Amino acid sequence: MDYVLSRDIHLAPSPVYSLVRKAEDNMLPYQWEALNDRLSEGPKSYSVRNLRAAAGEIDAPHAGAVFQDSDLFKWIEAAAYALKRERNEELEKKIDWLVALMRKAQLPDGYLDTYYILTDISKRFTNLRDHHELYCLGHLIEAAVAYYEATDKKDILDVTLRYVELVNATFGFEEGKKQGYPGHEEIELALVKLYRVTRDPMHLDLAKYFISVRGTNEYFDEEAAARGDKPAWAWSVYSHRNRYYQADEPVAEMTMAKGHSVRQLYLLTGMAELAYETGDEKLKAACDTMWKDITRRQMYITGAVGQSAYGEAFTLDYDLPSDLVYGETCAAISLYFFASAMLKSHPLGEYGDIMDTLLYNGTISGINEDGTRYFYVNPLECIPKRSKFSQSVFHVRTQRQPWYGCACCPPNIARMLTNLDERLLFKAKDTLYVNLFASLDAETRLDGGIAALTEETSYPEDGNIRFRINKAFSGFTLALRLPGWVQTYNLKINGQNPPCVMDEGFIYISDLKDGDEISYILDMPARLVSAHPASYATVGKAALMRGPVVYCLEEVDNGNELWNVLIKPDAPFTVSADERFGTVITAPAFRQKKDGWDEYELYAPLRRPAYQEFTARFIPYRLWNNRGEGEMRVWLRLKEN
Amino acid sequence: MDYVLSRDIHLAPSPVYSLVRKAEDNMLPYQWEALNDRLSEGPKSYSVRNLRAAAGEIDAPHAGAVFQDSDLFKWIEAAAYALKRERNEELEKKIDWLVALMRKAQLPDGYLDTYYILTDISKRFTNLRDHHELYCLGHLIEAAVAYYEATDKKDILDVTLRYVELVNATFGFEEGKKQGYPGHEEIELALVKLYRVTRDPMHLDLAKYFISVRGTNEYFDEEAAARGDKPAWAWSVYSHRNRYYQADEPVAEMTMAKGHSVRQLYLLTGMAELAYETGDEKLKAACDTMWKDITRRQMYITGAVGQSAYGEAFTLDYDLPSDLVYGETCAAISLYFFASAMLKSHPLGEYGDIMDTLLYNGTISGINEDGTRYFYVNPLECIPKRSKFSQSVFHVRTQRQPWYGCACCPPNIARMLTNLDERLLFKAKDTLYVNLFASLDAETRLDGGIAALTEETSYPEDGNIRFRINKAFSGFTLALRLPGWVQTYNLKINGQNPPCVMDEGFIYISDLKDGDEISYILDMPARLVSAHPASYATVGKAALMRGPVVYCLEEVDNGNELWNVLIKPDAPFTVSADERFGTVITAPAFRQKKDGWDEYELYAPLRRPAYQEFTARFIPYRLWNNRGEGEMRVWLRLKEN
Repeated sequence: MDYVLSRDIHLAPSPVYSLVRKAEDNMLPYQWEALNDRLSEGPKSYSVRNLRAAAGEIDAPHAGAVFQDSDLFKWIEAAAYALKRERNEELEKKIDWLVALMRKAQLPDGYLDTYYILTDISKRFTNLRDHHELYCLGHLIEAAVAYYEATDKKDILDVTLRYVELVNATFGFEEGKKQGYPGHEEIELALVKLYRVTRDPMHLDLAKYFISVRGTNEYFDEEAAARGDKPAWAWSVYSHRNRYYQADEPVAEMTMAKGHSVRQLYLLTGMAELAYETGDEKLKAACDTMWKDITRRQMYITGAVGQSAYGEAFTLDYDLPSDLVYGETCAAISLYFFASAMLKSHPLGEYGDIMDTLLYNGTISGINEDGTRYFYVNPLECIPKRSKFSQSVFHVRTQRQPWYGCACCPPNIARMLTNLDERLLFKAKDTLYVNLFASLDAETRLDGGIAALTEETSYPEDGNIRFRINKAFSGFTLALRLPGWVQTYNLKINGQNPPCVMDEGFIYISDLKDGDEISYILDMPARLVSAHPASYATVGKAALMRGPVVYCLEEVDNGNELWNVLIKPDAPFTVSADERFGTVITAPAFRQKKDGWDEYELYAPLRRPAYQEFTARFIPYRLWNNRGEGEMRVWLRLKEN
Repeated sequence: MDYVLSRDIHLAPSPVYSLVRKAEDNMLPYQWEALNDRLSEGPKSYSVRNLRAAAGEIDAPHAGAVFQDSDLFKWIEAAAYALKRERNEELEKKIDWLVALMRKAQLPDGYLDTYYILTDISKRFTNLRDHHELYCLGHLIEAAVAYYEATDKKDILDVTLRYVELVNATFGFEEGKKQGYPGHEEIELALVKLYRVTRDPMHLDLAKYFISVRGTNEYFDEEAAARGDKPAWAWSVYSHRNRYYQADEPVAEMTMAKGHSVRQLYLLTGMAELAYETGDEKLKAACDTMWKDITRRQMYITGAVGQSAYGEAFTLDYDLPSDLVYGETCAAISLYFFASAMLKSHPLGEYGDIMDTLLYNGTISGINEDGTRYFYVNPLECIPKRSKFSQSVFHVRTQRQPWYGCACCPPNIARMLTNLDERLLFKAKDTLYVNLFASLDAETRLDGGIAALTEETSYPEDGNIRFRINKAFSGFTLALRLPGWVQTYNLKINGQNPPCVMDEGFIYISDLKDGDEISYILDMPARLVSAHPASYATVGKAALMRGPVVYCLEEVDNGNELWNVLIKPDAPFTVSADERFGTVITAPAFRQKKDGWDEYELYAPLRRPAYQEFTARFIPYRLWNNRGEGEMRVWLRLKEN
């Protein structure tokens, strides 16, 4: 199964379209200013400056994190996806300028990493564990592939290929090469993408090498000893055999997500992409096992992953505290990439369900309404004063920030959003899969011929989706994802109940003809959701959802001390359109009163609480913190009587 | 008000006596082996070895933490309290040997800290922030005072006084002295104790200096800059003006407990002792404010304090998570010291209530049944597998340990327990205060004459306390603490209801005569307790207590996933004597069933849980983890219908 590409799709207004526009119109220009150190607030990026210095254009020391180049590469990739929809001379001029700088900065042997070029080049490739050279190259590859695909300009690809040649000459199983692998995975998935453009078997083999060598040797510790450094993460839950870097066992044997969550998920995405390309069943099986572990035992209801701020990492099954969660925006994005790679190998609705969850909750919560303020951490509960005094939640910023010293998330969400159109529809043989719902016109070639359709929807504001088949051929099948949360739906073709097959989360409709009209209505009532009772942090609590959208309470609407708000299991919910937040939900709720308690008493004989009824107002979680600092909460206690 | 001293008290068998015996018979000998590096397990102490090396007896580098000397001093202090009850040649020989080593190790100018003597003496007093010289001296002073009081031997006092002279010559407001103060408070309270023995005003003035200079200058940062070091705790909740060290404001202006909890509490104890000695009303008021903040807003139900593992520190009001808590054994002990110092200035029952809570819960949980295995951290909830995979609770050891690299807690609890007899009774003018309940004979001089009594009790196993007045004088008043948890009690003198006055948590009984028999029966039913609803971690939950004792569930009795155990507000409790655990409590409870949930589902439309009734068995919290590793939980969800 493959993506239906941007060139085959024309987006029309819908919530998806608004996100794409926000990314193109607001995020790309804003982030360009940030990367050029022209914001009036927040930490500087230095990433353009570093590149200019490495190119010899200016005299400046390297500044910022060792992986600062990657922010620039992700921005190029994000911009390239925009160019796929519409060429833009001004934007291309910027990128061409950057590519020219890269060419000047690149060393004769192909090396291109501004940190080592501007510091001590003799130390390059001596600290794969911490210094992210291969991670940055991965992002360069993704940028190069995207920009080449968008514009047919080969310069960036040439620069990239020379660097990849050097890496291939340096690392590998062959005699004389280092048997190293990156501390931060990313290059694996990028090399598979590169292979799809170049069809050079070396690129696929190098991806295979980086994936299969991982966890089979003691490279990180040997490399550390060689430079007089110590093993990492001593005296921590990650101390065992570099498990923080997913290096404690061969990747095909992994059963539980561990360590840094973005790294774990980029690795899995690379594994899934490679398995898709090579048909490697063992790798595919490991991906399946890990998919289940992550989405069924280590994922928050918003799609957020990475329960631990310490190390930005996974912890253990069913450990899902709403307050401690890291839920890095990048981690949610990387789970979206993993889901999307998994879907290619296997048309299972569940993958799209998780993408839907991520798109409307845990990724997009990372940006504010106009896309120019960012959360790195996405908690499911915020008590602002607690973040000021308790280190456990010090990582929870109580306001989105203009930029970060480590600004991986802003350009990452930009590239996810500008590329959104290429994850809406998938195709395999004669079947066109509708994965995410958006208004669009699409015309694409399947095995048996060309199919074209129009889709119209305001999803996820409501569940009404209409299709018109504009072109069909004999054998053409349309597969509509039926989200797992749907209890009832209504599917009609030209007003009739169609014959159709339901399989693994998709409804397959065959025998479609030009002009057929499909009405696909997903009932989308507000609903309370429970978590598995093995999840200690959520027992006795419920979260409010509607369709794929998770809702939350904010202090500005509901007062403070939100932990004292309870909801009845059978509460009647009122769903209303809201100009600012799309759809808001109100319901009678109960506030535990403080009668009988005063500041002079901390513990007292059991007091049966009294409650005050009030109307709680829920807004979509992704839109929290757009009205100033305040408490926020997703999981509410239940009032059982 | 002052303590009734050891020499006036003879303990008889009771729970208090058992604790004292455990400390004398098991802890002191075991810890002596530990301090001499003769344990077969656990990290080495090196503290005796360091002293021997500093004395030139052996050739060895300094090893262990910079404050390792303090463990030895605390052990001497603990042993000295035992000697107050009964002289012991063998024990004194050990201490005299240590004192002789100290004398040899002491530099000509009085300096005595093995870390700097064995490393670079030119660097002494250049890092008060981190290197704990004054903290160690504080413990030396306490040891010296105790050993001198127990034996009249002056050697240790001489050594100590010479070191104190040097410190007094080095630090102070006077021209030419450094205006420094310790990063870890302790010397303040110790100097007040020393003053009580020496009556040398310099000792009191030096205590005053260390307390009043604190937070009025930028000493730590200036000192750090001078040695080329950076300010501490950057990028943390402690970054503001060294608040971690209680150095961000003058101590009399403090309103919220902050930073390292043992330091905060030793400082407060020093302030309270100084205020008691000098009558400083401003200092006393600050102590009152801080007492309220700690015990009414930052203290766990077990008396544990220090909510944050990061920095072993206080966080903020009403932040009382059962899982994240640090609850260092030393912090609970230091709160016990603070309470005891406060009680001297003001006969308020509440101080004794907290001492009671600490004695039977949050301090004693730090040792196992025989006193030779130790917890540093005392959580109110333990999920062993979580401690292995989540750094948030990595500090929660799931089994008590034979020793620690930083072994501050074991000798600290030893000195608290061997000195227990001196915190049972207090006296002021003609009144004898019964603060903690224990079986004993006491005979002590009050202003108006000598009073003597016999007390018999098994408290806290039951609430029956009997007194017999063996000697009284005209005007003699007995004040019995009426614990705050008591709902009903029965007080009889010679079988009659006595005339008595109830004031601030004490029942004052006058006109007592020789031979009077007092029966004081505190009803001690099992009771559920709520926490203030501002405490987000405990809302909707209850804890089980009986008298001052907090109970818990353990996996070995109740199965795992204890977060799924609920209790009804009106549950009938059965209290039974238990050979091993004193008093255990059983009650019908409810286990939330997992019907309908499987491993393939993490979130699902609200499921009304089904429950299975079972008999839950509660044991005293202080005795948890004596039957192997397993889950433990104090706060249980309530089943309201």
